[in-house]
Amino acid sequence: MANERIVTFTTDFGTIDHYVGAMKGVVLNINPAVQVVDITNSVQAYDVLDGAIAISQAYKYYPANTIHLVIVDPGVGTSRRPLLVRTDRHFFLAPDNGVLSFVFEQEKERLQVRHISAEHYFLQPVSNTFHGRDIFAAVAGWLSKGVDSSAFGDEITDYVRFAAPKPKAMAPNTIKGVVLKVDKFGNLITSIRPDDLPELFQAETPVFRIIIGKSEVTRMKTAYAQGTPGETFAILGSMGFLEIATNRGNASRLVGADKGSDVGVVLEGAGSNSGA
Amino acid sequence: MANERIVTFTTDFGTIDHYVGAMKGVVLNINPAVQVVDITNSVQAYDVLDGAIAISQAYKYYPANTIHLVIVDPGVGTSRRPLLVRTDRHFFLAPDNGVLSFVFEQEKERLQVRHISAEHYFLQPVSNTFHGRDIFAAVAGWLSKGVDSSAFGDEITDYVRFAAPKPKAMAPNTIKGVVLKVDKFGNLITSIRPDDLPELFQAETPVFRIIIGKSEVTRMKTAYAQGTPGETFAILGSMGFLEIATNRGNASRLVGADKGSDVGVVLEGAGSNSGA
Amino acid sequence: MANERIVTFTTDFGTIDHYVGAMKGVVLNINPAVQVVDITNSVQAYDVLDGAIAISQAYKYYPANTIHLVIVDPGVGTSRRPLLVRTDRHFFLAPDNGVLSFVFEQEKERLQVRHISAEHYFLQPVSNTFHGRDIFAAVAGWLSKGVDSSAFGDEITDYVRFAAPKPKAMAPNTIKGVVLKVDKFGNLITSIRPDDLPELFQAETPVFRIIIGKSEVTRMKTAYAQGTPGETFAILGSMGFLEIATNRGNASRLVGADKGSDVGVVLEGAGSNSGA
Repeated sequence: MANERIVTFTTDFGTIDHYVGAMKGVVLNINPAVQVVDITNSVQAYDVLDGAIAISQAYKYYPANTIHLVIVDPGVGTSRRPLLVRTDRHFFLAPDNGVLSFVFEQEKERLQVRHISAEHYFLQPVSNTFHGRDIFAAVAGWLSKGVDSSAFGDEITDYVRFAAPKPKAMAPNTIKGVVLKVDKFGNLITSIRPDDLPELFQAETPVFRIIIGKSEVTRMKTAYAQGTPGETFAILGSMGFLEIATNRGNASRLVGADKGSDVGVVLEGAGSNSGA
Repeated sequence: MANERIVTFTTDFGTIDHYVGAMKGVVLNINPAVQVVDITNSVQAYDVLDGAIAISQAYKYYPANTIHLVIVDPGVGTSRRPLLVRTDRHFFLAPDNGVLSFVFEQEKERLQVRHISAEHYFLQPVSNTFHGRDIFAAVAGWLSKGVDSSAFGDEITDYVRFAAPKPKAMAPNTIKGVVLKVDKFGNLITSIRPDDLPELFQAETPVFRIIIGKSEVTRMKTAYAQGTPGETFAILGSMGFLEIATNRGNASRLVGADKGSDVGVVLEGAGSNSGA
Repeated sequence: MANERIVTFTTDFGTIDHYVGAMKGVVLNINPAVQVVDITNSVQAYDVLDGAIAISQAYKYYPANTIHLVIVDPGVGTSRRPLLVRTDRHFFLAPDNGVLSFVFEQEKERLQVRHISAEHYFLQPVSNTFHGRDIFAAVAGWLSKGVDSSAFGDEITDYVRFAAPKPKAMAPNTIKGVVLKVDKFGNLITSIRPDDLPELFQAETPVFRIIIGKSEVTRMKTAYAQGTPGETFAILGSMGFLEIATNRGNASRLVGADKGSDVGVVLEGAGSNSGA
């Protein structure tokens, strides 16, 4: 049973320096019986939105009582608060800067958010530039040992959160979204979900145009391998968003778009064939 | 005993996105008592041969009953089958695209290959673009809990496999191979093994020339540190293949060769001094 | 209790190839009950100083009896010795090339250093180019199983160590140091510690100039976020050294300095305001 307690890492510390290695040591020194697991340590530097996407796409797959460390912390050493968040199933430790926004959104009925203030659980002295090690990892260790959440600080309700970028309806058959991220393969993950434009995701795909970068995409596929070489197409991806992709190639380079690029979707005469 | 069960990861998902983190969550949610270990998640994107080399060089060092996830899966969402492979000591989960070819070669007397079809073990709904998470990781979890292989699907014999690129004899004292991979240090790992040209690897090295990239290599060493600065040389590497290397430098750049480059080896008058 | 034994990895093998994955297999095959944890596998290739910094910044956070593998080993296959080092709390396995120099410095009263020579603990045959796998990982496995240090070889005292680069006083109010490393964020970690120039780190910062790259830095901050956009400043970093940093940007690029660059610090009229 001992090692069934898990602490995950989602940070922008990278894998080249010793930072994550030091944090894991702190957790394990307090509780050698936890298993430390990386979600990713390659969140883009200082990019709270990128971190928010990463944790929101991975946390729910973990077992009950997993402790998720989410450290993208450009405000370290200032008055921004360290948070301990508890949901029905999981714990989260993160700076109060919105990096848990999408967790808050998905778990809104079940949230308990605390301002971590119990300094006797911190590593001493606390460095002003590395609370990931001296505060968050130490608290993760004690939490995994069974210390009750309430021991770390008081509940608060005014924590920082931001809304996910929502696509905008520009006309009855036109919406505009944005590229949320480009993954390792060059797939462009947009902010558009099936609920935003249900006709687009019907079994019988309507005629449509997606304007992105310097390209127009007019085909929908259900598997990457359905694309012909060099063809870019739309697909409902595993993150639950519309993606622009290509088969065995890099769609980001092919269409000339990147994180933050606009994505317009126009349904052509959708009214006439959306009878489903 | 609990955590002595190991699940390894060999994928092309990279370490920047949340993909591998989500897969580990799926495994651990089913069985929090396994230890998840990365072999590498940086197989070249879509490169089944590169994945086949990586797993073939690492799996055999792992303890009995290790479950190896090998996900390089450009055909995800098409009719390519998910496989569960069992050998005397290990389990492998991979798409049926040849990524286990070198495992099949090394374990050919001891193979049981199944087509995974028992959908009740999958994460629902199954995404069309991420079977690594929704099928393979879930099956790894249940397999680690002790579910018998036979529960996941029927045995098959027509699984995809390809032959390792074999060097060709061009003349009695000349063979031609190819660069299989370039490692992090710039070492060029060729397809040539000691069995292909035993004279070259004798205690007393014969006179030889290796033609690779824009260079000729004429020295054999037994340790990287024997090379003088800027010198490229041949060496029998830890993967069991002839390598072209240099001391504290990058041989790939020095000789101007890369993955896929031709490698010619000519023994000069080998007939006269191969008396060992 | 079983999995509470930890083996850490600090290597220059990278995360793209199978090398670290093979080493972890060797450890786990001997003792499936250990937890393997990466400190970093991205030490700069062949760079013993870079490896020495990484392990020295992380090891002390780990629990008692942790076994640290530190493999930066350009001399593999030559007569350089494999070492087993024991301190009060930890074990270290590393080639005898100075990569443990800063551990030796920090633990000097408590060191036991052995030349590993007990070949029956090695993986056979021992490759000439990968002692990380065939010697060090195998010894880590047996050590974690409880084999006594003395079984692996005799104590030695003539192991290789080098001194950390120490700043030099150039004049009463002027010292000169060097950039030890640039981290993922572009922070320039210098060789200057508070003890080297206590006035600089007083509560009331004196007037000073830091000459680095093509820039002069004249501000001290206590948090990265205190910097205005594009401003470079000095800060006492989490590694215990003076850093040159910028807020949400890359100081290395801004000041035009890199690992090995000179850093000069001049206290202006320090004599008059160093009354603390």
